[in-house]
Amino acid sequence: MKSRNERHNKQNISYRLYLVSDEGVLGGRDFLKSLEAAILGGITVLQLRHKEGSSQAFYHRALKVKKLTEYYGVPLIINDRVDIALAVNAEGVHLGQQDLPVTVARRLLGPDKIIGASTATVQEAKEAEAEGADYIGVGALFPTATKNNTRSVSLERLRIIKNSLCIPVVGIGGLTKENIPSVLNTGVDGVAVVSAILAQEDIQQAAKDLTKIH
Amino acid sequence: MKSRNERHNKQNISYRLYLVSDEGVLGGRDFLKSLEAAILGGITVLQLRHKEGSSQAFYHRALKVKKLTEYYGVPLIINDRVDIALAVNAEGVHLGQQDLPVTVARRLLGPDKIIGASTATVQEAKEAEAEGADYIGVGALFPTATKNNTRSVSLERLRIIKNSLCIPVVGIGGLTKENIPSVLNTGVDGVAVVSAILAQEDIQQAAKDLTKIH
Repeated sequence: MKSRNERHNKQNISYRLYLVSDEGVLGGRDFLKSLEAAILGGITVLQLRHKEGSSQAFYHRALKVKKLTEYYGVPLIINDRVDIALAVNAEGVHLGQQDLPVTVARRLLGPDKIIGASTATVQEAKEAEAEGADYIGVGALFPTATKNNTRSVSLERLRIIKNSLCIPVVGIGGLTKENIPSVLNTGVDGVAVVSAILAQEDIQQAAKDLTKIH
Repeated sequence: MKSRNERHNKQNISYRLYLVSDEGVLGGRDFLKSLEAAILGGITVLQLRHKEGSSQAFYHRALKVKKLTEYYGVPLIINDRVDIALAVNAEGVHLGQQDLPVTVARRLLGPDKIIGASTATVQEAKEAEAEGADYIGVGALFPTATKNNTRSVSLERLRIIKNSLCIPVVGIGGLTKENIPSVLNTGVDGVAVVSAILAQEDIQQAAKDLTKIH
């Protein structure tokens, strides 16, 4: 966790424990309080995903989350929507293979914003890097209930992707405290989780526990 | 229809016959060819609406439509998505009450892009104007099958809204060649239609017929 007033330099961001927010796994618990608990537990990046609902609802939610991440000095990445990222001055966007192309997002966001891209093959990963992505997410490494239509990626392929790129690589998809060691063992820069933090009874402790895995 | 190379000055745009695109009413006919027929028939503004599907699909469709509108010199307005509008350099965006606020869109788009807003009351209309909208759409004036959850607006209220604002006002919602005269009779600057053009057998002729109504 960086100090409150430290500005994010995208070169210095740690992708070690990357939380993707999903309200669906919270079981009715307060969204912002849950994110705050995860931040206090030690997540290093927060991605806000909001696939359902209006642009206005996404914007208002993103504004609130930005206040929280700003306060704690955690970089905020907006899923898919470049306009929402610009509107709330988030640190960046994360683009799936069905979102805007990386090159287009870069043109709209300028050089200083973070652009992440979801990839599942060596070729996609290399393309994302060549197009100017700052990091890539690779998965799904394990079966996951929080996202549909994912492709599966083996740990061996994850290792090859990591060794093929210069930018940070984050593993994602069905990660738990049990399988995270095998993911980190491939040499990736971090792990992205949803349920392993947000579906746990003690969110802060769950995040803290994940920071201790090496 | 403006000449091919004339640049759009947003002050000079005619809202007289504003087509909102909706693939659903085309009955399987080619989307771009249908829009081209509408342009040849004399529409003065084209709004691209793409509520279903991915950001990438919207982007690629918007790129193709922009080539078409650029060729014929018709201003292109993107529904909801400020990032898509920026990505394809459309002339502007149209914002519903559930989309980004007008003030936020203006900050992202700058002073030269067109921002339209959907309104259904005098208060909403005045707010949109105060926030910097360049025009407003007012409706639904008549029952419509192409959009759900619309509020109804009487022609009398439309007239009051028109008389309360300085920016152009466009009537929308269930408009047909039969009821358009009563809408124009309120003094509004134009009519926005979907089915009255795109659901007709001869799209070009249908648009042409609507340009002749006074």
